[in-house]
Amino acid sequence: MRIHPVILAGGRGERFWPLSRRARPKQLLPLLSDRPMIADTLDRLEGLAAPRDAWILTARDLLDPVREAARGVPPSQIIGEPIGRNTAPAIALVARWLEGRDPQSVVVVLPSDHRVDPSNRFRADLERAALLALERSRIVVLGVRPTRPETGYGYIECGGPVAPGETARQVASFREKPDAATAARYAGDSRYLWNAGMFVFQPEVMLEEIRAHAPDIAAAAERVPRPDAPGLAEALERYYGAVPAVSIDVAVMERTRRAAVLPVQFEWDDVGSWASLAGKGLGAAPANAVRGRAILEDSEGIVAFAEGGLIAALGVRDLVIVRTKDVTLVCPKNRAQEVRMLVERLKRDRDGEPFL
Amino acid sequence: MRIHPVILAGGRGERFWPLSRRARPKQLLPLLSDRPMIADTLDRLEGLAAPRDAWILTARDLLDPVREAARGVPPSQIIGEPIGRNTAPAIALVARWLEGRDPQSVVVVLPSDHRVDPSNRFRADLERAALLALERSRIVVLGVRPTRPETGYGYIECGGPVAPGETARQVASFREKPDAATAARYAGDSRYLWNAGMFVFQPEVMLEEIRAHAPDIAAAAERVPRPDAPGLAEALERYYGAVPAVSIDVAVMERTRRAAVLPVQFEWDDVGSWASLAGKGLGAAPANAVRGRAILEDSEGIVAFAEGGLIAALGVRDLVIVRTKDVTLVCPKNRAQEVRMLVERLKRDRDGEPFL
Repeated sequence: MRIHPVILAGGRGERFWPLSRRARPKQLLPLLSDRPMIADTLDRLEGLAAPRDAWILTARDLLDPVREAARGVPPSQIIGEPIGRNTAPAIALVARWLEGRDPQSVVVVLPSDHRVDPSNRFRADLERAALLALERSRIVVLGVRPTRPETGYGYIECGGPVAPGETARQVASFREKPDAATAARYAGDSRYLWNAGMFVFQPEVMLEEIRAHAPDIAAAAERVPRPDAPGLAEALERYYGAVPAVSIDVAVMERTRRAAVLPVQFEWDDVGSWASLAGKGLGAAPANAVRGRAILEDSEGIVAFAEGGLIAALGVRDLVIVRTKDVTLVCPKNRAQEVRMLVERLKRDRDGEPFL
Repeated sequence: MRIHPVILAGGRGERFWPLSRRARPKQLLPLLSDRPMIADTLDRLEGLAAPRDAWILTARDLLDPVREAARGVPPSQIIGEPIGRNTAPAIALVARWLEGRDPQSVVVVLPSDHRVDPSNRFRADLERAALLALERSRIVVLGVRPTRPETGYGYIECGGPVAPGETARQVASFREKPDAATAARYAGDSRYLWNAGMFVFQPEVMLEEIRAHAPDIAAAAERVPRPDAPGLAEALERYYGAVPAVSIDVAVMERTRRAAVLPVQFEWDDVGSWASLAGKGLGAAPANAVRGRAILEDSEGIVAFAEGGLIAALGVRDLVIVRTKDVTLVCPKNRAQEVRMLVERLKRDRDGEPFL
């Protein structure tokens, strides 16, 4: 068995402004360690998959920093998308390139910028998923046990076991981000798992399903040459110009009969905003979470992120405080999602450009 | 009449950390305009007193930046104190140097780092005080009508008029910083005025009173040569080593029978902490006060001070947010006085030194 990680790094998130900038989106930020998140994502696979077998899809203008951050991944396997077209076209492309190479190949599609912990459980779960994909020709989606009634995630409704004695389940349905009441119901019902956006399959199996359920994407992918062929950039222009923007969930997973969901043992978080860096307090007081230098006097529940310099806080609660080389951000943790509003305002400002 | 401003600039305040540093205390900060507060203090006198007639007493190690900030004041009239000894020794020294020079001389002692507004009323009040000092040989202290039950200021209890028809009053007593209940009583009683630390007198009159009530200081001052004499630095070492640390209030004002208090028409604030830069809101919402660049979205009552870079806040209330080249400070306005705690903590930290 040979595992090919396909890392989706097309994100353009503004929710980590002011650290995230146009040329430095979330996957390139050192949010969870001192290295870019995408480097953590590759490291986490150590022992299960080699960087030389990894593929990364990112925005074309991010090729240089992504190559810098993803040492060990062959440059010809780091693909610059001229425009974002969601996950189905990206997955179809790599599946096509890997098709027929090795009957023991398994693709593992992973987001580049999520938190996964602990890594050894993650690798064990991926390995189980890969065996399932190989042995039963399934497209396996990983399902995470909800720890809270999260309204920001998609859910998977599990059916019965894929075979007697198997942990993996049939997929009864995919559920989009729910409202609060529905999320509360899901969180209390063991049939519902979070959809972590991680898919495991043989390239041939995925391609068959794309041909069946998204034939336009499959046909367009047939016309793209090998990644080391001359003229690839132009071919990618044509491909991304032709395919619809659609997720693999919608294009394939909701339609195929070969989907299976594997309930996993690791903790997962999509690190959707500054608030998701928050510490977990022992007892009543919410802990402070600090990156860089900070002194926090009589303060609780603070997320402090200093990129150089010092953050000093006194007598405050549940705030996000970020200091970059040119911006200081302060907002309550429960409004961290709204940081985009500040970015929007700067876009309207005549002299906001240097901070975007 | 010739007015000699004597500006007391010995402060070492830490309440404006992180903008204030050891080598850059409050009087050198651009808190109320784009210029150091001491420069504003000199400018405010324009038309009433010339910079060439001004004297400044500061800490010896601050001589260079004070000279830089106080253009127009002759360098020989900017005196570096080797150690701080409160206000009485400083005032005695300059009074001694000005004694007998010109019978029409009046000294106006002013703090270097307070807010005064508007300047034209301030000058008019100073002129009235100077005339009173000349005509009646009084030591006039300016009294500000309280606008709030402030516990951080000293108060002056007024007696009857110094003469029939005069606005100026006898001083019944000086009152130290009161507790909250007493402050509330003072604020509701027109006999009590804030002591703004501004004194107006003929040098000879002040010296007579120092000789009478603080003879040790007067005697020590006699032994200091003229400010342009060789060996002044050594003489100042001896002088400041010999005199007690005592305020002019305690050494002279509380004892002399020549004190008078002039109720003034200008607004005054000692700018004691970041919170004192707060804006005054119209209606219910407290206004934001911004220096430098800031975008404040759905935020009220913020004091934002950016020394370069940008402060961005979202959904916060009544906070002080300061961004300097190396530190970001966040604290509630009503705890701005406690910023010193952070400075104390940095002093204990092994690697806090760069931020002090």
